[in-house]
Amino acid sequence: MINYNPVELILTKRNGNTLNDEQIRNLVKGFLNGEIPDYQMSALLMAIYFQGLNREEIFSLTKSYIESGKTISFPAKLKVADKHSTGGVGDKISLMLAPIAASLGLTIPMISGRGLGHTGGTLDKLESIPGFRTQFSIEEFRKLVLEHNCALAGQSKDLVPADQKIYALRDVTATVESPGLITASILSKKIAEGAKHLIIDLKIGSGAFMPDKEKAQQLAELLISIGKRFDLKVKVAFTNMNSPLGLAVGNGLEMIEAIEYLKGNPLKDTKILTAELTAQLLLSTSFAETEEQAITMIEETVRSGKALKKLEEIIIAQGGTPAVIEDYSLLSTTKYKIPILAPSCGYVSHIDCRSIGYALIHINAGRTKVTDAIDHSTGALLIPKIGDFLEKDEPIGEVHCNDQIKGEKVVELIQKAYNLSSEPIPEEPIIFDII
Amino acid sequence: MINYNPVELILTKRNGNTLNDEQIRNLVKGFLNGEIPDYQMSALLMAIYFQGLNREEIFSLTKSYIESGKTISFPAKLKVADKHSTGGVGDKISLMLAPIAASLGLTIPMISGRGLGHTGGTLDKLESIPGFRTQFSIEEFRKLVLEHNCALAGQSKDLVPADQKIYALRDVTATVESPGLITASILSKKIAEGAKHLIIDLKIGSGAFMPDKEKAQQLAELLISIGKRFDLKVKVAFTNMNSPLGLAVGNGLEMIEAIEYLKGNPLKDTKILTAELTAQLLLSTSFAETEEQAITMIEETVRSGKALKKLEEIIIAQGGTPAVIEDYSLLSTTKYKIPILAPSCGYVSHIDCRSIGYALIHINAGRTKVTDAIDHSTGALLIPKIGDFLEKDEPIGEVHCNDQIKGEKVVELIQKAYNLSSEPIPEEPIIFDII
Repeated sequence: MINYNPVELILTKRNGNTLNDEQIRNLVKGFLNGEIPDYQMSALLMAIYFQGLNREEIFSLTKSYIESGKTISFPAKLKVADKHSTGGVGDKISLMLAPIAASLGLTIPMISGRGLGHTGGTLDKLESIPGFRTQFSIEEFRKLVLEHNCALAGQSKDLVPADQKIYALRDVTATVESPGLITASILSKKIAEGAKHLIIDLKIGSGAFMPDKEKAQQLAELLISIGKRFDLKVKVAFTNMNSPLGLAVGNGLEMIEAIEYLKGNPLKDTKILTAELTAQLLLSTSFAETEEQAITMIEETVRSGKALKKLEEIIIAQGGTPAVIEDYSLLSTTKYKIPILAPSCGYVSHIDCRSIGYALIHINAGRTKVTDAIDHSTGALLIPKIGDFLEKDEPIGEVHCNDQIKGEKVVELIQKAYNLSSEPIPEEPIIFDII
Repeated sequence: MINYNPVELILTKRNGNTLNDEQIRNLVKGFLNGEIPDYQMSALLMAIYFQGLNREEIFSLTKSYIESGKTISFPAKLKVADKHSTGGVGDKISLMLAPIAASLGLTIPMISGRGLGHTGGTLDKLESIPGFRTQFSIEEFRKLVLEHNCALAGQSKDLVPADQKIYALRDVTATVESPGLITASILSKKIAEGAKHLIIDLKIGSGAFMPDKEKAQQLAELLISIGKRFDLKVKVAFTNMNSPLGLAVGNGLEMIEAIEYLKGNPLKDTKILTAELTAQLLLSTSFAETEEQAITMIEETVRSGKALKKLEEIIIAQGGTPAVIEDYSLLSTTKYKIPILAPSCGYVSHIDCRSIGYALIHINAGRTKVTDAIDHSTGALLIPKIGDFLEKDEPIGEVHCNDQIKGEKVVELIQKAYNLSSEPIPEEPIIFDII
C-alpha cells in the first residue's frame, strides 16, 4: 500500500529539490507493482530530465533498480567483465570483444539489447545465426557463463525489472537523455549480472545519442563514480560515431564482418576499437600490465584461432549453427544487391549516420518499435569514412535487400547522408579519449 | 488515426521549440479520443511546465479546447459576463456577485467548480441548499440563464471536454501551475459558455496557488491578451489571500454568510471585494460609466432586496429550497461548535490559509480527491485578520463539526496557522490592483 503521495514527490523534483533514498525506493517499488500509474511516473521522469538527479539520488535509483529483481554472482576468483556501448551505426564490437576476452580467460556475462531507431542491437545480430538462442533464465545464463567463460543473452525479466519497465516508458515519453537515468539504467544491469569490470563505449557524433562532448564527459564521470560505490570498476572510452563503424550495417552482414575479423581479416576502425576496448578490460582485471602487452595478447588469440574457436563454442552452447563460420550464405542471402554510387565528387565532410540507420529500417534491417520484426539478411556495405575522396559515380557500397523498390529508396537516402566538400577534410580519430 | 509521432511532439517542446497550431490541435484531439495515452500527455505537460508556451501556442490550445466540445451563444443584445477566481479560503464572492449582477440586468452564465485541496468550490457551497441542482445539459443551462439572467452550474461534459480531461491529469501530475495551461483552461470555459466580459479574481498570498506577485502579473497579461483575441474583455483584480475571506470557511456556513450579505449585513473585506469585482463588470459592459455609479447601483440593488430576491429566484429555478434564506439550520446544523481560543497574545503577522483549508478536510468541509464526499454543514468561523491584536485565550472563532475528536484536532491545527508578533503589524489591503 502506498503510504506517500506521488504528486508530492513529483512536486519535490519539479521544484528542484532532492528525493531521499526511501522516497526513490518507494517510487520504484510503487511503479513496478502498479500502485503508481504510468502517467505519474512519466511526469516525474520529465521533471528529472529538467532538474536532474544528484549523485545520492542516482545511487539510490541504481540500488532500487538492482533490488527490484534477482542478481547473479560469480566465484570471487573469476574476473567478471563486460562492455556497454551507448549505441551506434555498424557497431559490432561486442561480437568480437566477447569471444576474444573469453578466450583470454575473462568471464563475460554479456547481457545485450535489441536495435531501435537508428542503432543496431547485439541480440539481433546474433540472431542472424540460425538457431541461436538469446533468452535464458538467470540460472541457465549463469551456467553458460561458468562453462564457456561467456554468454551473450537478452535481459531476463527477473533482472532489474524496474529498469526495464521505466526504460520502456522513457522511450515513448522523450525522457531517455537524462544523465542520471542513463547512469542508473546502464550500471544496474551490469551490477546485477555480476560484473566487476566494465568498459563503456560512449559514442559521440552524428550517429550517437550524445552529440555533445561536454555532456559525454559529465555522463562518464557519473558512470565512474557511481560504479565505484557498487564495487564496479568503470572505464569510459569516448569514441567517434561520425562514420559508420567497419563496412557492414545490418544484422547478418555485421555477423559476417565479425567472423572475418576473428579469422584475421580486420578492418582498420573496428580493429582499433576492438583492441582498445578489450585491452582496457585486460588492464582493469590485471590480466595485462601494460597496454602493449594487452594488445599483443589480443592479436595472439585472434592469430592463433582461439578467439574464433571461442565464438564457435558460444554458438554451439547457445543452440546456433556453427556452419555459419564457413558458410556466410546462412547469415545473409538477399534477392538484390544494389550498388550505391557516389552522388558527386569531393571529400567526405559529414556523414549523417543517424539517417543511414533510419533509412535501413525501410528494408527491415532495423526497427521503429520494439515489437517490429527484423529481416536479418538485409543491410548495407558502406565504404566511405570522413575525409575520404570520392569520384562521382564511384561505387561506395551496396544495399542488400529483398524488395527492389524499397532498396532503391534506401540507396537514395544513403546517398543523401554523405556531404562532400571540394576542400580536403582531415581523417578523424577512432577514439578520442579513455578515462 | 494518428498521422504524427507524439514522441516527436514531446521532444519538440522538451527542447524548447514551438508547437504549431496543427500540432496542438492534433495533440488535444488525439488525447481526447484516446490515441495519445495519459503517460505521453503528462510528460508533455511537464515539458510545458518547464519550457512554457508562447502566445500563439496558448491561443491554439485555447481554441482546441473550445473546439473539443459544444459552445453556447446568447443574443447579441445581452451583456454576458462572468467572474473567475483562482481559488482561496472562505471565498464566497460568487454567491453574492452573481445575484447582484443578474439583478442589475447582466447575463451571468456562471460555470463553477468544486473544492479541492485547501480551496473551496462554489458548487459545493450551493449544494448546501437542499435540493439545489448544479448539473444541467447545455440546453437546460442556456434556458435557465435566459429566463433568470443567471444560472450557477457545474461544467457539462460537453463543454470543453479536452480541458476537463487534461485538467484532471494536470491535477495528479503536479503540472497545474503553468501560466499557459492556466490561461487556456480558464478562458476556454468562459468563451465556450458565451461570456463576453470577464473579471478574474487573481489571488495572491498564503492561501493562493500563486504566492508570487510577479508571476501573477505575467499570468494576468496573458489572460487579457489571449481573451482579446477571442473577443472576451478580461479585467484582472489582484487580491489579498493572506487572511481567510469574510468570517466563514465551509460550505453551508459560507452560504449563510452570503445570504446575510444580501440581507444588508456585509463584512468589511467581502463587501469591498464583491462591490469592486461586480463594478468591473458593470463598467466593462457599460452598464455603469464610473466606478462610483457602479458602486451605488450595487448598494441599491442590495438595499432594496432585489439581489436577495434574485438569489431566491435562482434557488427556486435550480430546484433548491428557498426556505434556507430564513432558516439557516437547513444550511448548517452540526452536533458540535468548539470555540477556538487565541494560543497566545500579540498582533497577527501571518495566517497560513493553506493549512487552514487542509485542516478543515479532517471534518469533511473540503476534500483531497475529487471523488471524496463533502459534509456541507461543517466548517469554521474565523475572526482574525492580519494586523489584528489578540489576547491569549480570547475566542477567535469556532469549529462546527459532527465528530468532536476530529473537531478538536482541527481547532489545534487552526491555532497553529496564526503567527503572532509582539510588534504592531499593519492591516493589509483587500485589493492590490486591478488591470
